[in-house]
Amino acid sequence: MIQLSLIGIGTGNPEHVTLAGVKALREADLILLPRKGEGKTQLVDLRRLLCRQILGTEGEQPKVVEFDLPTRDSDGDYLAAVENWHTAIAAIWGGLMEVHLPQGGRVGMLIWGDPSLYDSSLRIAERLSVAGSKVAVNVVPGITSLQVLTAEHRIPLNALAEPVQITTGRRLRERGWPADATSVAVMLDSGGAFETLDSDGIHIWWGAYLGMDQQCLIDGALKDIGATILKRRAELREQHGWIMDTYLLARQN
Amino acid sequence: MIQLSLIGIGTGNPEHVTLAGVKALREADLILLPRKGEGKTQLVDLRRLLCRQILGTEGEQPKVVEFDLPTRDSDGDYLAAVENWHTAIAAIWGGLMEVHLPQGGRVGMLIWGDPSLYDSSLRIAERLSVAGSKVAVNVVPGITSLQVLTAEHRIPLNALAEPVQITTGRRLRERGWPADATSVAVMLDSGGAFETLDSDGIHIWWGAYLGMDQQCLIDGALKDIGATILKRRAELREQHGWIMDTYLLARQN
Repeated sequence: MIQLSLIGIGTGNPEHVTLAGVKALREADLILLPRKGEGKTQLVDLRRLLCRQILGTEGEQPKVVEFDLPTRDSDGDYLAAVENWHTAIAAIWGGLMEVHLPQGGRVGMLIWGDPSLYDSSLRIAERLSVAGSKVAVNVVPGITSLQVLTAEHRIPLNALAEPVQITTGRRLRERGWPADATSVAVMLDSGGAFETLDSDGIHIWWGAYLGMDQQCLIDGALKDIGATILKRRAELREQHGWIMDTYLLARQN
Repeated sequence: MIQLSLIGIGTGNPEHVTLAGVKALREADLILLPRKGEGKTQLVDLRRLLCRQILGTEGEQPKVVEFDLPTRDSDGDYLAAVENWHTAIAAIWGGLMEVHLPQGGRVGMLIWGDPSLYDSSLRIAERLSVAGSKVAVNVVPGITSLQVLTAEHRIPLNALAEPVQITTGRRLRERGWPADATSVAVMLDSGGAFETLDSDGIHIWWGAYLGMDQQCLIDGALKDIGATILKRRAELREQHGWIMDTYLLARQN
């Protein structure tokens, strides 16, 4: 019998891990660490470091096994490519569990942010079977980049008694400002989806590498600061070889 | 000089506190604990218990001071009443800081969930001054009830690559299903705002007392299970004297 814990670990600040996260990692028999390629080795290094810091060196240690993520087809239908990719990852997870835990046991996976928000691990776990059996899954919630963004800017996510829409850069580009939202939090933007909006009256709070040493924050009126953010983003990406960023937009008055 | 930490503590499960939350509480000179009235004494008890568990009994201990929250005007304009209420609370916080930390120091406040999501503490802190000076504020993010809801149901908050709207019961009643959302997370619903929707094709994942011993989860097609949820909610409220619940709605097909 395999028990898989999807453990939200926050966004790089080891102090953002919860006590439940620490416990789940320490109680695991096996920890699977994906390697991502695409110059994102710093992110893998951060997970390794976090693992070491949390596990310490005392007592019986979980076995930590690294594996390469398959690449996703970039041709054809986006959703179909994602489905196939999830199935391929599930096959890898299952194979590693069969090899390293032939008698069953506890598997831990470190999930960036929270497993519930723009993360594939729950969908991959659904497809998972080990030696023909389904795997029991539990989820340990973690601090998301949006929460670090708002904490570091010291702002609420929502205006008083108002709703907030969480969306993607792709969606913002395609559909514009969501009809029923005064605040919009944007994730997974490959850069500058906010440029497609009429910037008048919109404030932006932007953050990159949230929770990490390289953290960078900028906020201001979108029409004044949008270009500055894009320039800074390009410089940081060049400097570090990769970037992860997110932002909150709010219509004021 | 006063340094105020707004510390997200999750929703009652002490293991959902982050390492940063533990550290901020332990490093405080003064912890302010609000008493809420309205039969919600269990929530105050939970904060007291969490404080004791996290602080332990070793070493120098912060001073823990309890205070009664003022009541909010329920007549007249809602937003104006909230503004006045925040100003009144800021005056109480400021007074307590002047009395208990005349030389300045670190103040910690335990914030249910995360200080960024439907919480007033940041807005109150903006109005705060101690001996005529502004107070330096920092925010420690915490796990929200929505994250516990999705973790316990083992579901993502968003459909694949789709947006999610976080809104209130009041807003859902007034405006109906948000125009640009496939998933809607509802907070602060005093009961049954989902009854105002056309339930066809909507799935609901509901949770009460999330993260606590009394936790209760129900999910199913809204048209089949909506009435059951309202009945169970009324029973639980009767049994415990209070209830906190939240839910996620998703359009399926």
